[in-house]
Amino acid sequence: MSIANDFASRLDRLAEVAVHVGLGSIKGQELLMTAPLEAIGLVRRITEHAYKAGATVVTTLFTDDETTLARFRFGHDDSFDHATKWLYDGMASAFRSGAARLAIVGDDPSLLSAQDPAKVSRANRARSTAYRPALELIAGSAINWTIVSAATPAWARQVFPGLPDDQAVAKLWDAIFKASRIDGDDPIAGWHKHNGDLHARAKIMNDKRFAALRFKGPGTDLEVGLCDGHRWAGGSGKAENGITYNANIPTEEVFTTPHRERVNGTVSATKPLSYQGTLIRDISVRFEAGAIVEAHASAGEDVLKRILETDEGSYRLGEVALVPHASPISQSGLLFFNTLYDENAASHIALGQAYAKTVEGASEMDTAAQLARGVNQSLIHIDWMIGSDQIDVDGVHADGTVEPVMRKGAWV
Amino acid sequence: MSIANDFASRLDRLAEVAVHVGLGSIKGQELLMTAPLEAIGLVRRITEHAYKAGATVVTTLFTDDETTLARFRFGHDDSFDHATKWLYDGMASAFRSGAARLAIVGDDPSLLSAQDPAKVSRANRARSTAYRPALELIAGSAINWTIVSAATPAWARQVFPGLPDDQAVAKLWDAIFKASRIDGDDPIAGWHKHNGDLHARAKIMNDKRFAALRFKGPGTDLEVGLCDGHRWAGGSGKAENGITYNANIPTEEVFTTPHRERVNGTVSATKPLSYQGTLIRDISVRFEAGAIVEAHASAGEDVLKRILETDEGSYRLGEVALVPHASPISQSGLLFFNTLYDENAASHIALGQAYAKTVEGASEMDTAAQLARGVNQSLIHIDWMIGSDQIDVDGVHADGTVEPVMRKGAWV
Repeated sequence: MSIANDFASRLDRLAEVAVHVGLGSIKGQELLMTAPLEAIGLVRRITEHAYKAGATVVTTLFTDDETTLARFRFGHDDSFDHATKWLYDGMASAFRSGAARLAIVGDDPSLLSAQDPAKVSRANRARSTAYRPALELIAGSAINWTIVSAATPAWARQVFPGLPDDQAVAKLWDAIFKASRIDGDDPIAGWHKHNGDLHARAKIMNDKRFAALRFKGPGTDLEVGLCDGHRWAGGSGKAENGITYNANIPTEEVFTTPHRERVNGTVSATKPLSYQGTLIRDISVRFEAGAIVEAHASAGEDVLKRILETDEGSYRLGEVALVPHASPISQSGLLFFNTLYDENAASHIALGQAYAKTVEGASEMDTAAQLARGVNQSLIHIDWMIGSDQIDVDGVHADGTVEPVMRKGAWV
Repeated sequence: MSIANDFASRLDRLAEVAVHVGLGSIKGQELLMTAPLEAIGLVRRITEHAYKAGATVVTTLFTDDETTLARFRFGHDDSFDHATKWLYDGMASAFRSGAARLAIVGDDPSLLSAQDPAKVSRANRARSTAYRPALELIAGSAINWTIVSAATPAWARQVFPGLPDDQAVAKLWDAIFKASRIDGDDPIAGWHKHNGDLHARAKIMNDKRFAALRFKGPGTDLEVGLCDGHRWAGGSGKAENGITYNANIPTEEVFTTPHRERVNGTVSATKPLSYQGTLIRDISVRFEAGAIVEAHASAGEDVLKRILETDEGSYRLGEVALVPHASPISQSGLLFFNTLYDENAASHIALGQAYAKTVEGASEMDTAAQLARGVNQSLIHIDWMIGSDQIDVDGVHADGTVEPVMRKGAWV
């Protein structure tokens, strides 16, 4: 069996994987998609596959970097505490009525880097507050949802500086196709096997029942206490609506929920973080009893500090994830300046909101009970990369005994 | 004073007119825009002018003909009774919170002409039902709103068949700029004068207090009874939020509300009607006591009949408008296959929902009281053109005396 490898065929297979692996199923559901304008080609392929698979209505909300930027360049000061609450409430309402969610990401990683950090932070905070009801439904896996990427010129220029736009975009698409595992004879079967591998790795970690993980390497000496009753997850999972889906295309991680009060030590980022158009470089922070008490960055430190000030939970961790340095994305040697890719090239932690699904019984708890169990709550959820081929990870048992989990970024 | 006439300058002036004449003001308001993807250039100019004028957040919901078509080509049968209620409810919620509305139209006039009329009609009906709460706020002038056009290749091909796309698009933009009155030394002052002319024409008609209008010409012998207490309007008007706005760019009409039970006779359309992607040609209908009892079309008759079956009010009139044949749009000699243009080139009537604002006291009435007064209610509001240089219009007074209003399409 041969398989076509021209761009159009690969784009179509990415769309097929997004619908049949990412969303898992869309039959009888609405699909709410978000995408940068430049991703229109992928949007059209996904829309076609979704309708063929039985979607009732597919709606795409497009974003445009130039109009996003116009707000910061020309907007009056009172603009920046404002968000489109009607739209985010509408999204939450769509999810409650059973709609699935697909995000195509590919925005300019440093779109807002030259803008006033105070305005950027106010706008982010207003957006996060308005988005909270919809985000809770996604974070709680009420519905099947997935994130995929599309190469855009602004993003490609950052990954391949110095190349003409068309070459940079072509190279970035190639990297996206490879990472998204759409090139085998049967990509869907390939994804079933990959999900099986990630489930097996999560089972190994679950059987260990570690009380904490210790990360050690250059600039990093961090102990991350895990929630009592935490569960490791990775690859496909089941949403509350009964559909098995893959939240990220690609995905290489296994992850679980740390205890919001049991994180101590220092940690240095191993890759830059692009957050809402601001590039934050060389993050280094110190935790005491779960909370960040000191934070530095060589670029974007202002924005980082304002992110941390979002709420009480933004100083604390909501996720810890392990990714081997042998991951295909890591092996590409590329720095993507895009969390979906960079977080699947390195072990990482996330500031802010925790996933209740990775703590036994937490999905049925109210917020107060989740907090008491150590499940962090916040308006934000921001992954940042702390793994590399120089980082060792140990598991710490409740009785204090220690065993190696990763050495130099590889599974032991 | 000289004025730049390159494309970029004219596009920018159209955006300026859309914000400062169309919306009138946007200071401290959200702006909700809808646009075809191909209108991105105009969207960006409008967004910039809106932020400069004090908009809090500008959100554009884009439509894409290819994904719209994909639903009809690939969607399962149960798709077509479905609409994005969450999105239309969100729009209504935005308007209730004070958002302004700007629609850029430019879609393919015959996008769905080859699709199953039953599916098209089911989808339209579901959409109209979901859109109703938002439409009521617009039809009731709760907020400032406006419609402008952008040239798209699919639309331009229909207006200028046989020309290469780039030439057709350039010619259509030129026609849009001319019709939108953006080419004078001071387009905003020009619009103030034009609004003054339309207000003066509406005053003449209001002073006459006609009980009915009679349209006579080839295939047309129609009497349109007017609502008791009707008011003629045209040009700028004041929204309930206090802002003076122009609902259509361009606009050449004066219009009022017919009585839903007092329309009798036959009428033939003078231009084709493009409705939701279906082109309906040579409409001819007969009214009895306000309701259409017979309807024909040489193309799209199926869709026309299904439109009429929408509800009890879709058989009846919600608007009657007078436009002189000397209107600049009419004089361009072009057939636009786009209601915003064609309705401003010819006198027209609208099936369906009436504007309460053009009946004394109706804005404060509930639906039952409006119906009793003769103000039609429906899910739809579809304008179609019945004027030309061969149509005479008479005004009929309550005592039965008749006086000429238009002869051969010109004001008497």
